[in-house]
Amino acid sequence: MQYKVRQESVDYLEATYRKIYPQDTSFRDRAVVRLEQLTMPHWALGDLMDLAVDLAGMTQSMNPLLDRKKIVVMVGDHGVTVEGVSKYPPEVTAQMVYNFVNGGAGINALARQVGADVVVADIGTVSDLSDLANSGKIIAKKIGHGTANMAQGPAMTRTHAVMAVEAGIEIAESFAADTDVFGTGDMGIGNTTPSTAIAAVLTGQDVAALTGRGTGLDDDQLQHKIQVIEKAIEVNAPDPKDGLDVLAKVGGFEIGAIAGLIIGAAAQRKPVIVDGFISTAGALIAYSLEPFVRDYIICSHRSVEQGHHFMHDHLKLKPLLDLNLRLGEGTGSALAMNLLDAAVAVLTEVATFEDAGVTGA
Amino acid sequence: MQYKVRQESVDYLEATYRKIYPQDTSFRDRAVVRLEQLTMPHWALGDLMDLAVDLAGMTQSMNPLLDRKKIVVMVGDHGVTVEGVSKYPPEVTAQMVYNFVNGGAGINALARQVGADVVVADIGTVSDLSDLANSGKIIAKKIGHGTANMAQGPAMTRTHAVMAVEAGIEIAESFAADTDVFGTGDMGIGNTTPSTAIAAVLTGQDVAALTGRGTGLDDDQLQHKIQVIEKAIEVNAPDPKDGLDVLAKVGGFEIGAIAGLIIGAAAQRKPVIVDGFISTAGALIAYSLEPFVRDYIICSHRSVEQGHHFMHDHLKLKPLLDLNLRLGEGTGSALAMNLLDAAVAVLTEVATFEDAGVTGA
Repeated sequence: MQYKVRQESVDYLEATYRKIYPQDTSFRDRAVVRLEQLTMPHWALGDLMDLAVDLAGMTQSMNPLLDRKKIVVMVGDHGVTVEGVSKYPPEVTAQMVYNFVNGGAGINALARQVGADVVVADIGTVSDLSDLANSGKIIAKKIGHGTANMAQGPAMTRTHAVMAVEAGIEIAESFAADTDVFGTGDMGIGNTTPSTAIAAVLTGQDVAALTGRGTGLDDDQLQHKIQVIEKAIEVNAPDPKDGLDVLAKVGGFEIGAIAGLIIGAAAQRKPVIVDGFISTAGALIAYSLEPFVRDYIICSHRSVEQGHHFMHDHLKLKPLLDLNLRLGEGTGSALAMNLLDAAVAVLTEVATFEDAGVTGA
Repeated sequence: MQYKVRQESVDYLEATYRKIYPQDTSFRDRAVVRLEQLTMPHWALGDLMDLAVDLAGMTQSMNPLLDRKKIVVMVGDHGVTVEGVSKYPPEVTAQMVYNFVNGGAGINALARQVGADVVVADIGTVSDLSDLANSGKIIAKKIGHGTANMAQGPAMTRTHAVMAVEAGIEIAESFAADTDVFGTGDMGIGNTTPSTAIAAVLTGQDVAALTGRGTGLDDDQLQHKIQVIEKAIEVNAPDPKDGLDVLAKVGGFEIGAIAGLIIGAAAQRKPVIVDGFISTAGALIAYSLEPFVRDYIICSHRSVEQGHHFMHDHLKLKPLLDLNLRLGEGTGSALAMNLLDAAVAVLTEVATFEDAGVTGA
C-alpha cells in the first residue's frame, strides 16, 4: 500500500518546468511604488519590504494571500548511516513520524504558533508505516526502504531520483486548491550527510568547509563524516550539471521530494519557504533542474550547520533568520511564515503619506 | 490638560528599583531540564530555547503567559532638530501620532499581525495633542514642548529627566493588570541624535563610530550630525556614571519614558522587548539606573543604524532579528513577539523523548 506505484515518464517533470515563469515584474514594480509612498522613511522596514516585493511578484497580487499555510515534512532514510555518520539510530526516523502525527514535535508546536498545517510524507523510510498511510495520517509516496549506502555506490537509481522529485510535485499539486504558501521540512536520520554531498557537488566548495556536526558529532566523528562524504563523491562522480544525477548518486528520497515540492510550488506561482540545511540541499537540486524556481524560494534561516551560507550564496538568496537552529522538520519555515505575514501587512495595511496627511522628506 | 502634573520625588524611582530582582534561577534550571528532554537533538532550536529559559526565569513560570501584548510608543520632540540633523520637519512627529491613532502606521500593521495592542504616549511633543489626550486616544504625559537644543546646553533639567522616567514607570504600572509582555517603541523626529549621544557617553565608543544616517542623511549631513553630537557632549559633559545626568543633558523625553517602561516592566517581572536604536538608548539609560533590568530585556533586532551593535554589546544581549530595519515605532518589538510566542510553544508543547517513545542519542 505504501509504495508509490504511479510511473511517470520524465515528461511529467518537463511539463512542470514549463509552467514556471519568473516573478511578475509589473507587480514587483507596483509593490515598490506603493512601499515608497508609505508613511515611513524610505525602505525603513528593509528586508520585510524586499520580501513584500517578492511576494507581489510571485503571486501577481498587491494583496498576496498567505492564510493557508502548509508545511510538508518529507521523510526518508539513508543507507549511509551504516558508516556511522549520525548519533541517532535510523529507527528514530519512524519514531519521529509518529511524533509528528501525534502533534508532539518541534514543527508541530511552531506550526501551531503561526497557524500552519503540518503534513508528513513518507518518501522512503526503512520502516513500515502502512498503518499511518492506510489511515490517511501520512502521505504515502514510499519509493524504497531507505537509500543505498552512497559511500559504496549510488544512493538510488536515476529512475528513483525522478520518482522522488515527482512525488514532491504531486504533493504540491494535491494541495494546490487549499494552500497559499508552502514550507519545506525534512526528517531522516543521517540526512545532513547526503545534503552536504549535494552542496559540495553543486556549489563547488570543499567538503570540509561544508560539513557540520549534524545532530551533534564530536571532532573525530566530524572527520569521519567528511571522509565518508568525500568517498561518496569520489566513488559516484556525480555530474554537477545534472541535478538528477547528483540526487541519484549522493542524495536522498526526501531531498528529491523537497526539490519536487519547490518545483511544484513554483509552477503554481506560490511562495515556498525553504527550511534549513537539508531543505536547502533540496532547493539546490530544484534550482539545478529549473533555475526559475529561485524566484519562488524564500530562505527561512541560516542554520548552525557549517556551510549553509555557501548554499544560500549559490542560490543568491539571503535567509531571513539566524537563530542557531539545527533541527529541520520545517521549523525554520514555520518561524519565517510570521515574517511573510508581516511583509504582507506592511504592503497592504500601512497608510501612504498622502492618505495620512504626513509630510514627506 | 496634557501636562503631566504629578510630582514624584526621586523616591518613586528608588522604590521601583527595589522591586527589581534577577531572573529566577530555579525556573531557569527547570526550563533547561525540560528543554534538554525534548524530542530533538540537544538544543536544536538554539536561540529560541535560550529565550524560553529567559522567559521562564523572568516570569517564574514553566508556562509563561504572553497573550496580552502591549507596545507602547513613546513620543517626544527634540530641540536639536534646529541644527538640521533630520531630513523630516518636526511637525511630522505629531502627524505620525495621528497616523498611529488611526491605525495607519507601520507599527499598527505589525502589531495587528502578532495580536499586540498599540498605545501611544505623548511625553513631550512640540505640538498640542490635547484633542487626542482628552478623548483618551493617547496617554497624556507631556513634560514639555520638545527638549531644548542639546548642542547649546542641557536637553532638559534633571527634574524633567526624572519625570520622564517616572512617566514610563507609571505607564507600565497602569497596564500591569492587563499586560503579559511589553514592547517599547518611539516616535520623535531627530531622536537618533540624542540616542547616539547617549550611546557614546554610556558605551564609551566614538561618536563617529556610532552615528548613522537616521531617516536618510547623505554624507555631508552625516558629518554635520556627528559634529552636532560631539558638540552636545562637549558642551554638557554628561557624567557616564549617572544615567539621569546623561538623559537630562543629551537625551529626550520619550527616551526617558522608554527607560521608565523598561524599569516598570522589570519591577513586574514581565519581559520587555526593546525595539531599535532609540529604544536601545532608553535601555542603556535604564541599565545605567538599575542594572538588574537587563534580566527582563529582550533585544528585538539589530538596526541598520550604525553603532547599534555597540549598544547591544554594552548590554551583553544579542538581538533576535537582523532585517535591515530602521523605522522605530516598536516595529522590531512587534516582529520579535512572534519569536517569544514560538519560544513558549517550544517550552510547553513539544513532547519529551520519554513521552513520545523516541530513542535518544
